[in-house]
Amino acid sequence: MAERPGSQAGLRRRNLALVMRAVADHGEVSRAAVAAEVGLTRATVSTLVDELLATGLLVELGTQRPGTVGRPGTALALNDTGPAGLGAEVGVDHLAAVAVDLRGTVRARARVEADNRGRPAPEVLRELAALVAEVRQEARAAGLGPAGLTLAVPGLVGRDRQVVMRAPNLGWEDVDAAGWFERSGGGGLAASPVPVTVENEANLGALAELWLGGHEGVTDFVHVSAEIGIGAALVVDGRLFRGARGFAGELGHVPVHPTGPRCSCGARGCLEQYAGEEAVLRAAGIAPERPDALKALQAAAAQEDPAALKALAAAGAAFGIALSGAVNLLDPQAVVLGGTLAALAPWLRSAVERELGRRVTDRQWRADAVRVSRLGREGVLLGAAYSVVRAVLDDPQALRPR
Amino acid sequence: MAERPGSQAGLRRRNLALVMRAVADHGEVSRAAVAAEVGLTRATVSTLVDELLATGLLVELGTQRPGTVGRPGTALALNDTGPAGLGAEVGVDHLAAVAVDLRGTVRARARVEADNRGRPAPEVLRELAALVAEVRQEARAAGLGPAGLTLAVPGLVGRDRQVVMRAPNLGWEDVDAAGWFERSGGGGLAASPVPVTVENEANLGALAELWLGGHEGVTDFVHVSAEIGIGAALVVDGRLFRGARGFAGELGHVPVHPTGPRCSCGARGCLEQYAGEEAVLRAAGIAPERPDALKALQAAAAQEDPAALKALAAAGAAFGIALSGAVNLLDPQAVVLGGTLAALAPWLRSAVERELGRRVTDRQWRADAVRVSRLGREGVLLGAAYSVVRAVLDDPQALRPR
Repeated sequence: MAERPGSQAGLRRRNLALVMRAVADHGEVSRAAVAAEVGLTRATVSTLVDELLATGLLVELGTQRPGTVGRPGTALALNDTGPAGLGAEVGVDHLAAVAVDLRGTVRARARVEADNRGRPAPEVLRELAALVAEVRQEARAAGLGPAGLTLAVPGLVGRDRQVVMRAPNLGWEDVDAAGWFERSGGGGLAASPVPVTVENEANLGALAELWLGGHEGVTDFVHVSAEIGIGAALVVDGRLFRGARGFAGELGHVPVHPTGPRCSCGARGCLEQYAGEEAVLRAAGIAPERPDALKALQAAAAQEDPAALKALAAAGAAFGIALSGAVNLLDPQAVVLGGTLAALAPWLRSAVERELGRRVTDRQWRADAVRVSRLGREGVLLGAAYSVVRAVLDDPQALRPR
Repeated sequence: MAERPGSQAGLRRRNLALVMRAVADHGEVSRAAVAAEVGLTRATVSTLVDELLATGLLVELGTQRPGTVGRPGTALALNDTGPAGLGAEVGVDHLAAVAVDLRGTVRARARVEADNRGRPAPEVLRELAALVAEVRQEARAAGLGPAGLTLAVPGLVGRDRQVVMRAPNLGWEDVDAAGWFERSGGGGLAASPVPVTVENEANLGALAELWLGGHEGVTDFVHVSAEIGIGAALVVDGRLFRGARGFAGELGHVPVHPTGPRCSCGARGCLEQYAGEEAVLRAAGIAPERPDALKALQAAAAQEDPAALKALAAAGAAFGIALSGAVNLLDPQAVVLGGTLAALAPWLRSAVERELGRRVTDRQWRADAVRVSRLGREGVLLGAAYSVVRAVLDDPQALRPR
């Protein structure tokens, strides 16, 4: 119950957000329906709607069908030529950028393959900024005004969401990525600055699943992906669960067989030793260094190569054991296999489900609570861009005038 | 950001709670200091304080020392002859009740030893009601007015906090314990009814630790206790983390050695098989059926009996492995050994700390994040009673007129 005391201005701000979210949730909706949903008077809602129309966040779609009491209403919708969210991704083997409109539709995208391991961070960021500038220009040409930029990185991000503290697979340590964009004016920021935020890719993958994954009514889940390490993130009550210091979701170092092989973290028998990309590739007889290693694994599994099938089943069992502990502790509604795991799910899933079925204490737990992401590897980038949109929906008044 | 729309009445209600909490946090505090802390004007705070004085929730302690600008203020404090919280505990081997005042001080207590396994629930509840009536009378004699009763049970409680769905160690199934009190008028409820709530004992033990455990600034922790099974509960951001269906905190069935011995839950190698009371007593060569088994274990360990020491060290290691998973997933500030584990901590702790030290990924994790409860087995009962007080502090306006 620790809340800041309410004020009239705070109240108005929250009510603007309520109206915005009601429209976002319905797609198209009348003022009267919004008023009924948020529990405010129609007069109050009309004033709020007028403000949101004036700032270009909402549009009126023309007169709705008659039949309702009072004057005929017009349907409200999110403006698809209003503010946009920019997302950019620093992957180990690629760079990408995307622009999404308020409705979450992708309006521009750009991508280059690049081996970013050990490359100087400014060089990587310069190349990324060129992609951002490209999608930004395309979005602008479509009438959209970018409201912010979120960078997805495979590493630990500071509390300020500005600095990449550690990204071992890139070789980054204390890289002020947001500051770099702001100082250099890259990505079109020189001409018109927008707020830049940095976020861990596993977190963004999980948020994308929450916002855009099509899991209706699922607000509590464990999202697991595996690129180099194992990236997991917890969504609780519709929000990212970060933990006391921001380190929550380290599923990769949950002990699976406590006396097992030594892990890079120093401990023994962590999940990563059984289900990390490198471990699985080696078990399948595929050299992890191959640039197409994951595709080769998928192809081998599709051709029912025994080593590949065995390696994936073993990884699935290890995931299942670690996830059983997570489910028993956290009682989520679902477990989502995302990122690269989505493509491997056909060969992982039954082992994951079997272990969960055996080990989860909750009698109501169902094997179909294991879900496979439809977003797959796209999730991270979409989550980055949509996080900007989400911030606008959550607090429309904070949107900087453009 | 899904908030109900604000209203003037809701605002006032929240502001009353803010003032109440500010006084509770400080013990003694002036109106001016409350105003500064909660960010409301002194005039607004004075009106709110007057209302809280009139309803008997706050008292004025007389004029404070001068030296402040303006007219001399009087110190405000929680009324220690105001509302009280009643707590009652159904243990496997005892029944107990307690009354605490708004400041959390125990003002009356009663306890009987009783083997409650398999006893008919109404018989157990009748005996418990007699204890409740006793502490209630004592509290009333001291000028306190009970505001509610919380029952602690070793089992799964329904979402409505009224019904004990399953308490295997008592042999209870679907027992409407709150309804029994309300219908029978037991515990003095016939003369003056108060709301009755039922809660799982592990949850109350964790909340007691949060509210009364003396862990300043610790709002995120895993609380572990072990009576018959292993009871754990998660506190996140100062609140109980219940999970999507209310089953969170099942640490006892986190896999420790996935191919280990078969557990009562049907799975293999759960923590309970290594660190549950029965497993530890057997390993120490003490018959779990002995009514003084735990005391015997403690005595044997104190006398450095090798079997007892080995059994406790093994249990500590198993706790450490399961807790490592929990810490890597949840990133709490601390792990608290509570309930009966508090008394056994001298022989468990170093093994717990060693496994956590090896296996927790967060570099900032410190071994001293393992804490031993000062409340021990008292925690559950205190948590039950104080949960009533807490509800009053959180929403003073909801207090029924007495």
